[in-house]
Amino acid sequence: MRAAVLRGPGQLSVEVVDEPRCPPGGAIIKVVACAVCPTDIKMARKGQRDLTYPRVLGHEVVGTVETSDSAGVAEGDTVQIWPGIACGKCPSCLKGHDNMCSRQGIIGFNRDGGFAERMAVPAEIIAGRGVNLVPEGLDPIVATLTEPLACCVHGQRMASVAPGDKVAVFGAGPMGLMHAALASRAGAAVMAIEPDVDRRNLALRMGAEQGIDPAEEDVGAAIAEWTGGRGADVAILATPKVRADDELLRAMAPRGRICLFSGLPKDDPMSTMDLNVLHYRELSLVGAYGCTSGSDREALGLLATGGIDLRPLISRRMPLGSIEEAFRSIEERESLKCVIDDLTR
Amino acid sequence: MRAAVLRGPGQLSVEVVDEPRCPPGGAIIKVVACAVCPTDIKMARKGQRDLTYPRVLGHEVVGTVETSDSAGVAEGDTVQIWPGIACGKCPSCLKGHDNMCSRQGIIGFNRDGGFAERMAVPAEIIAGRGVNLVPEGLDPIVATLTEPLACCVHGQRMASVAPGDKVAVFGAGPMGLMHAALASRAGAAVMAIEPDVDRRNLALRMGAEQGIDPAEEDVGAAIAEWTGGRGADVAILATPKVRADDELLRAMAPRGRICLFSGLPKDDPMSTMDLNVLHYRELSLVGAYGCTSGSDREALGLLATGGIDLRPLISRRMPLGSIEEAFRSIEERESLKCVIDDLTR
Repeated sequence: MRAAVLRGPGQLSVEVVDEPRCPPGGAIIKVVACAVCPTDIKMARKGQRDLTYPRVLGHEVVGTVETSDSAGVAEGDTVQIWPGIACGKCPSCLKGHDNMCSRQGIIGFNRDGGFAERMAVPAEIIAGRGVNLVPEGLDPIVATLTEPLACCVHGQRMASVAPGDKVAVFGAGPMGLMHAALASRAGAAVMAIEPDVDRRNLALRMGAEQGIDPAEEDVGAAIAEWTGGRGADVAILATPKVRADDELLRAMAPRGRICLFSGLPKDDPMSTMDLNVLHYRELSLVGAYGCTSGSDREALGLLATGGIDLRPLISRRMPLGSIEEAFRSIEERESLKCVIDDLTR
Repeated sequence: MRAAVLRGPGQLSVEVVDEPRCPPGGAIIKVVACAVCPTDIKMARKGQRDLTYPRVLGHEVVGTVETSDSAGVAEGDTVQIWPGIACGKCPSCLKGHDNMCSRQGIIGFNRDGGFAERMAVPAEIIAGRGVNLVPEGLDPIVATLTEPLACCVHGQRMASVAPGDKVAVFGAGPMGLMHAALASRAGAAVMAIEPDVDRRNLALRMGAEQGIDPAEEDVGAAIAEWTGGRGADVAILATPKVRADDELLRAMAPRGRICLFSGLPKDDPMSTMDLNVLHYRELSLVGAYGCTSGSDREALGLLATGGIDLRPLISRRMPLGSIEEAFRSIEERESLKCVIDDLTR
């Protein structure tokens, strides 16, 4: 079968590889579509913390079950896959924090993923309720965005986004746009902070109340004006270009939560902050990484019931052979999401 | 009447001052007892963010209602006073975060407090449910510890202390000891990190499972051993001598919460941290300052029902004229809590 295989930084190629075997208690899916995540591109260019080689990338996967060795999954079903492989037994799993499983594997990171004609689904994913039926009426192409939406659902839960909150979303790439849509749907007011005018305008169409250009405006002053001087209740950092620092702390309301949603560059992850500002104003810095299986199911439900319409994010649909073109198009900010929807070519 | 008046840094004296007048809609209490908080000493020596002069200090107050201009408070009642004066109308108050009221006053900080024979209780405190009946059977001397206990109740709520958590409490002064007692009562396991052997032993008697001396042991290694390598679920920084830094981040379990409970020295409040550790391990830094009126009532209930026994913390009871001796005794770590229980001498 054909697959996009990464053999090391800069070494991605579409190759003919062996078909995966069905794992005991697992399943084989025929991939219907797999969306490209910026992390795929980062992995292909520079590597990533959880990546091992050689690897078939792709973790935003929808497919049709071709072979099943589990009573939990029926052949012929169209399913969306939560990419976490959690043990179900460690303290994190027992608390429901399965994205923090101490022995976690991740599809597309350290197990082969969805940029291939077929993909093996390990038994642990089925046991961990990570194989979710795509409901009738939900376009499987849109369903590939379940996992990134789930990361936003999870991040907003970590940061306790609530009705009436003023939420400043930094970055209006696909994740920032999903955050804007989700938070406004939850009854919060959203300000999108993004230099690209088209992305800013899309944020407004997807629910943001305000959009500002950080290259043109003083962000702190804009937040102060927007919140009547009170500050933002939540800041979501959905770009590696912005980090929590004293300036951001000063832009927060009392009890404000700053969600560290995006990772920072590996060679420059530090920040210096006045901890007394956190103390006296009861601010929180909250890390969020990936999504739990529960938030994955919740995100799929939001897409299926029409609560969130992510179709405006799908810029292009392409065959597997064009994956490098998809990467380029995202890197150069021509595209938001690209979905690989033909794995045979 | 007699009162301990602070006229500027280093200028505390017991003086004869005018009796307070009953505020419209408020009350006058005859002070039964008022406990000394380390913040009182800090204010007397160096000032404090919320302090204004001249000021009668004291915010851990129990008294008997002598005059009431409110239907909410009956003359003759023995009451404990939440020291916050909240507006009840700002966004923080409406959310129940009355300790973050944007127009907040604080008894003993910017309104006269309890180191006096009588104290005025503003109408806002009564309206904000900050005047709490001391239940029969609860020693009023012990009830003076309601407010500091409430700060711990509040801090642990902010840090989401839960049954089964491993909680590292840094500092076993009165606040650290209350944290140890509270967290262990809530079903968490506690490690007390404190150089003073007597305080460490008291922490063990009050519920801590482990006590370690940070001058003798590597704290990170001790936490790792105690938690089977997983790290602490919660760290409570109940001393200004410890701050959140990379070393502490490394000692935390995935999803761990670090409660910034103590303020840091005003001239040295900064810390530099690797934000990617927060991101990938989903750690949180959570500020906590003071207590809400709700946590004050909850703390009084814990004391009244015997859920928490704070009598071991009361080292000395003294008259008002000995307040400097009380301060010295606390500063030199001879005493944990000193309670001024005779305001006439």
